[in-house]
Amino acid sequence: MTKTRKIRIRRVAFQGELGAFSHMAIRRMLGPDVEAVPRPQFEQMFRALADGEVDAAMVPIENTLHGSVHENYDHLLKFQLPIVGETSERIVHNLIAPPGVSFAAVRRVFSHPVALNQCLDFFSVNKQLEKEPFYDTAGSVKMLAAERPPDAAAIASTLAAELYRCRILRRSIEDDRQNFTRFFLLRRDGKAVSDAPRGFKTSIVFATRNVPGSLFRALAALALRDINLVKIESRPLRGKPWEYLFYVDFLGQRDEPAVQKAIGHLREVSDFFQMLGSYPRGH
Amino acid sequence: MTKTRKIRIRRVAFQGELGAFSHMAIRRMLGPDVEAVPRPQFEQMFRALADGEVDAAMVPIENTLHGSVHENYDHLLKFQLPIVGETSERIVHNLIAPPGVSFAAVRRVFSHPVALNQCLDFFSVNKQLEKEPFYDTAGSVKMLAAERPPDAAAIASTLAAELYRCRILRRSIEDDRQNFTRFFLLRRDGKAVSDAPRGFKTSIVFATRNVPGSLFRALAALALRDINLVKIESRPLRGKPWEYLFYVDFLGQRDEPAVQKAIGHLREVSDFFQMLGSYPRGH
Repeated sequence: MTKTRKIRIRRVAFQGELGAFSHMAIRRMLGPDVEAVPRPQFEQMFRALADGEVDAAMVPIENTLHGSVHENYDHLLKFQLPIVGETSERIVHNLIAPPGVSFAAVRRVFSHPVALNQCLDFFSVNKQLEKEPFYDTAGSVKMLAAERPPDAAAIASTLAAELYRCRILRRSIEDDRQNFTRFFLLRRDGKAVSDAPRGFKTSIVFATRNVPGSLFRALAALALRDINLVKIESRPLRGKPWEYLFYVDFLGQRDEPAVQKAIGHLREVSDFFQMLGSYPRGH
Repeated sequence: MTKTRKIRIRRVAFQGELGAFSHMAIRRMLGPDVEAVPRPQFEQMFRALADGEVDAAMVPIENTLHGSVHENYDHLLKFQLPIVGETSERIVHNLIAPPGVSFAAVRRVFSHPVALNQCLDFFSVNKQLEKEPFYDTAGSVKMLAAERPPDAAAIASTLAAELYRCRILRRSIEDDRQNFTRFFLLRRDGKAVSDAPRGFKTSIVFATRNVPGSLFRALAALALRDINLVKIESRPLRGKPWEYLFYVDFLGQRDEPAVQKAIGHLREVSDFFQMLGSYPRGH
């Protein structure tokens, strides 16, 4: 891995507003100098990368509370843009207001309903605060920064506070500190952006007919070669009863001989197989 | 299965407002005569059943677009309330307004942001409509029925329109017709509420240390007995690197000899095992 590769990433698409948790993941993985390019919908983010408008995309793929983002697995299958890295971001919610608004003045709190619902302990001890659902966490900070109501705050990331020049009134007000989102970084050319001090991970998707033991036979391809599985998830194929997609992540790099043999074996026993990518293992 | 069992269910808890998709699932499975008991949060719904305030709870467990509801798996583990049935509900979004409000008069559309985002095709051809995020789909109909703004509609279920005496202006405006939510029905006594014309399903959770092949060995317990796996999902145990929970659903009933042997075998090779329930297979 050379530094040149890192430099070639200039623009990275993500879903949401500037200051979103995906934007934080971009900064954490690629530093503050890359340009984060917001897109309103996941599909538009994939399309921006496919069409060459950006050099990479940062895609949330699973959350410890809410599970896998199936929609993004669907886009991975459809767009066939390779995964080149992974990273994890802890979801830390902060109470944020424009300069001049003190905590004592706040009566209304804007954010996405999911974020509001992840701070219920905070609201139960601050009964003067009314929850106001808004489209987006970072977008609610952007709105307050523009409209400056004297009695309102928002719940969003530290990055949102920084970008919209607002102040953090209360830090880390989320109920659950074990709320993490895992992201995939995608590039058209499939090239990694970092070294792999913790080794590599490979993500694949395959389908089998659901005869008893078909998954067991498929997993034999990995187990017989001592390849360590780190994620497995089945998803029924709608309209095709008894057929399933399996998303599997395992440790290893696609060019290693054992992995190549395992993939050959898997292709043999599955009705459909797609490589999603081999990438340096993240945290 | 006797009819008496069915009759004993009088009150069923669910999360959300009356008219929610969970409420529709209660009606579909148990008929219109049971009382649906709303609770604002999932945990409160589980607690209502644990404390005997209700006879059953209707719990969303996975969605075809958004994946498994991990929070509810956590509550299943914690509360140990057995699954006694499953059902599936297609998520159909309708544009709903109080009587007297015509489609031509509508400028603002209230709903949960997730629902608004599932109707983007509709909004892109009806550019006069502004999306207004609200807490809850059914709750937005309830609010309009009470406040009667002349220019507003909501997006919610047909049941919400019926319950709040509003009218459906446009039916089935969702982008994706393959959006289904699967629900578990829970009861304290673990007794089924219906016959099992399609046989039984059993749901279990187990943990293994992630040595290579440990899942493979665990699945052997099912495969060697020709037991048909219908769902598998791994979830990393936070704070315990290399330990994983596996959620598995398979066909069969817990009292069948092959299933009993498979469970004994699984207990032997796993560090943790919990039976979530055996129940008539739904649609």
